[in-house]
Amino acid sequence: MLEVKTPEEVLELIQTAFVPVKGRTELVPLTESVGRVLAEDITAEEYVPDFDRSTVDGYALRAADTFGCSDAIPAILPVAGQVLMGEGAAFELPRGACVYVPTGGAVPKGADCAVMLEYTEDYGDGTIGVMKPGAPGMNMIFRGDDVYPGKLVLRAGRVLNAQDIGALAAIGRVEVPVERKIRVGIISTGDELVTPDQTPGPGQVRDVNSPMLTALLNAHGAQTVSYGIVIDDEALLRATVQRAAEACDAVILSGGSSVGVKDAACRIIESMGELLLHGIAIKPGKPTILGKTGNKPLVGLPGHPVAAFFVARLFVLPLLARLAGREQRALTVTAELTESVGANHGRTQVNGCTLSRVDGKLLAAPIRSKSGLITQLAGAAGYFVIERDCEGLPKGAQVQVYIA
Amino acid sequence: MLEVKTPEEVLELIQTAFVPVKGRTELVPLTESVGRVLAEDITAEEYVPDFDRSTVDGYALRAADTFGCSDAIPAILPVAGQVLMGEGAAFELPRGACVYVPTGGAVPKGADCAVMLEYTEDYGDGTIGVMKPGAPGMNMIFRGDDVYPGKLVLRAGRVLNAQDIGALAAIGRVEVPVERKIRVGIISTGDELVTPDQTPGPGQVRDVNSPMLTALLNAHGAQTVSYGIVIDDEALLRATVQRAAEACDAVILSGGSSVGVKDAACRIIESMGELLLHGIAIKPGKPTILGKTGNKPLVGLPGHPVAAFFVARLFVLPLLARLAGREQRALTVTAELTESVGANHGRTQVNGCTLSRVDGKLLAAPIRSKSGLITQLAGAAGYFVIERDCEGLPKGAQVQVYIA
Repeated sequence: MLEVKTPEEVLELIQTAFVPVKGRTELVPLTESVGRVLAEDITAEEYVPDFDRSTVDGYALRAADTFGCSDAIPAILPVAGQVLMGEGAAFELPRGACVYVPTGGAVPKGADCAVMLEYTEDYGDGTIGVMKPGAPGMNMIFRGDDVYPGKLVLRAGRVLNAQDIGALAAIGRVEVPVERKIRVGIISTGDELVTPDQTPGPGQVRDVNSPMLTALLNAHGAQTVSYGIVIDDEALLRATVQRAAEACDAVILSGGSSVGVKDAACRIIESMGELLLHGIAIKPGKPTILGKTGNKPLVGLPGHPVAAFFVARLFVLPLLARLAGREQRALTVTAELTESVGANHGRTQVNGCTLSRVDGKLLAAPIRSKSGLITQLAGAAGYFVIERDCEGLPKGAQVQVYIA
Repeated sequence: MLEVKTPEEVLELIQTAFVPVKGRTELVPLTESVGRVLAEDITAEEYVPDFDRSTVDGYALRAADTFGCSDAIPAILPVAGQVLMGEGAAFELPRGACVYVPTGGAVPKGADCAVMLEYTEDYGDGTIGVMKPGAPGMNMIFRGDDVYPGKLVLRAGRVLNAQDIGALAAIGRVEVPVERKIRVGIISTGDELVTPDQTPGPGQVRDVNSPMLTALLNAHGAQTVSYGIVIDDEALLRATVQRAAEACDAVILSGGSSVGVKDAACRIIESMGELLLHGIAIKPGKPTILGKTGNKPLVGLPGHPVAAFFVARLFVLPLLARLAGREQRALTVTAELTESVGANHGRTQVNGCTLSRVDGKLLAAPIRSKSGLITQLAGAAGYFVIERDCEGLPKGAQVQVYIA
């Protein structure tokens, strides 16, 4: 018989019992790659820009031709032509001359800087006066300044954000190698469950856990596959868990609060591989089971939606992060309790709360209600954890609130 | 001629010149509502649960029938039947009797508590012994404990998260009234631009801003509509801006770094409504313009991708939040500069940086490179802002880093 484990032991177990899923690289279009995890280092294969560019509207010239010029004694240069946006500057700048370039325009060979229009005067006779001397490199972006062949642009493992998408666009990567999302099969069990669009009959309730877990896991980068509601029939449940385990990287069973269903889930997991955990010393959330078939976790969550939610946040997300080869980082804020919270359970306690800012101080108001009530959590800003060796927290205590 | 405004003045202008877009409610399926903004208060229309439930496997009974019982002197009660999961308990509990109920099962009328199986003994003759007295309400969830008709479940304006989806599922809301996303038309301008899938010819570069802005705005809850790349032709640009303004809540022009295109954009905005802003005292990002037609913002972003990115983060996101009637909240972390950063420009300066944790300390390493280089930002963790009256920051200074 497996013993109940502490939350720390469960998190440790997740790291030792599972390894990252391999071979998950897939190509997606650039426009769909934001938020995805880059699967390979990205190195440039070309120069960006592929030509010397001006960063100002003005004249491209040789800096040496303007040394010592000023408002009083401008350097007078013939205008040898103009560069048009989007066209190359295929000619070489004649000695002692200049060409007009727009911002972003190509600078001809021979020119080593650009002088802003504001510092020049057009004499109307094919020459201009330059009032301010140029310096080599001034107002120029040179070929390959941004990237050049072989330059590392982005490292594997990065979660791609908007500016990364910009960099990939710049180097022409319109298909991006990203990690395939971890696929999670979700099964709800229980004779009492109906789908949310149905009206419950006597003794029935709507399935809350499937849509809630789907929303949670999708928001954290997983891909969920729904296997619907399975009635309390061990053979049927076994067949569904096996089908889900074949198609997915992990399977989450939820519901089945009755002892019979829990026992059936344990038997199914044991027959498919190994049962690793039977109970977590946490409130709510104790009746949680975890097993594996190969490297695929099989999780049995409590049926109570609030318990299922907390266990999913605290343990399933780190589990999926482990499979994805990522570190799970939880976002917390420090807040002050608006009232005392008792905790005399010998179990780690998780409490939903709302957050408000009063006089610049962040206040956490604990939500009190019976366990299992999902509206306890709806409208909550997050939750805080009271360690099992703590008998409660007084009003005014500082707590770390996890943003739900 | 409009004067260059400070960042604070621009943020103030956004609040005064625009009002939230009205009439944006739309119904979406529950499964697609996560992350969306709830458009109406949600009140329950029924009881959840719709029956009294046991929270344990055990026996439903009248607490009074077990007063004073103990291990030594159990209360002996006849078992009047059992409740099956998912079926009602349509009978009334006979006086002095009990019925078996599974966790989550319906409790018959007359019973006021449930005693856990562990505290009972089945004598095998149709009676059980109860070793621990019940108390009214013990191990029970009563009809409507979770919600009841008229109870406010979720407030309008909330960004729906996983537990909210759970609550909506519980009350059978499979279609959810959410705010239609703010629609933003995105136009890239410039004769030098080609789409990211093309190989730039002489003097050409790929359009970085369109895919980057699309990714950024979508990630912040907007819906983008791409109007492609428009060449430097005022009539064509005008027609495109007008078409975008008709279909969208806001229009963002980007690119067109040359003076000619900027002037054309100003003329177009003025002819369609009002030019509100011509230049922001920020580096990079100065050549930004903002106007409006009715309540629809028309924004001209700098062509340089880095400048366009910072201006979009710092001003376009608050602008879209204003249109959405939300507060824009930026996430910052405090970090220590790994090296000094100069800033002697009289303009607010924005600097990309990477973040790393060394010995528990969060370090921000400023990224140094020429402006306009998008790889400056790729791989960055975020950016920090140096106020315009600050001449620079020394190594070791604490900065607030905005997470990009």
